[in-house]
Amino acid sequence: MVAQLNDAERQAALATLPGWEYDSKRDAISRKFKFADFTEAYAFMTRVAIYAEKADHHPEWFNVYNNVDITLTTHDAGENGGLSQRDIDLAMKIEEIL
Amino acid sequence: MVAQLNDAERQAALATLPGWEYDSKRDAISRKFKFADFTEAYAFMTRVAIYAEKADHHPEWFNVYNNVDITLTTHDAGENGGLSQRDIDLAMKIEEIL
Repeated sequence: MVAQLNDAERQAALATLPGWEYDSKRDAISRKFKFADFTEAYAFMTRVAIYAEKADHHPEWFNVYNNVDITLTTHDAGENGGLSQRDIDLAMKIEEIL
Repeated sequence: MVAQLNDAERQAALATLPGWEYDSKRDAISRKFKFADFTEAYAFMTRVAIYAEKADHHPEWFNVYNNVDITLTTHDAGENGGLSQRDIDLAMKIEEIL
């Protein structure tokens, strides 16, 4: 079981991730990315994929052509899944990769 | 403008793709795939991505961990986008990669 962030922790974390939106229904964060073309988008995804596998924490993501929509939540945080520090770490890494 | 498949063409094509579902609202086909783990799923996606880029015809897809959901339609087929031979070719290639 992973610790779910409380309100204060979540607000502090989101303040450092201005591009990310909070979904209170799912207790998840998401961001939409747009690239020059498909290969740029997929190259970005591949860098994220390798990091995610190393961290053993994987994104939910949708891609069509140059668009990549990423949602982060932790399935084993809280009772029904929710935002944890692992999501914040992955979001920060994604920003760095960008 | 790419030619949209008519009913007979679509039915003949779908008969060769038993795992794929037809969405009449979007005039699109989709299939859900499940792999052993994330690296298996992402390796599959990467093979599809390289083929899609070569064919200049890209999937809409969603991935979370070992699940990959793929939807195929052609944005410049018909008036509002629809199924074309390019989708059938990509679906057949995906089956081959699998």
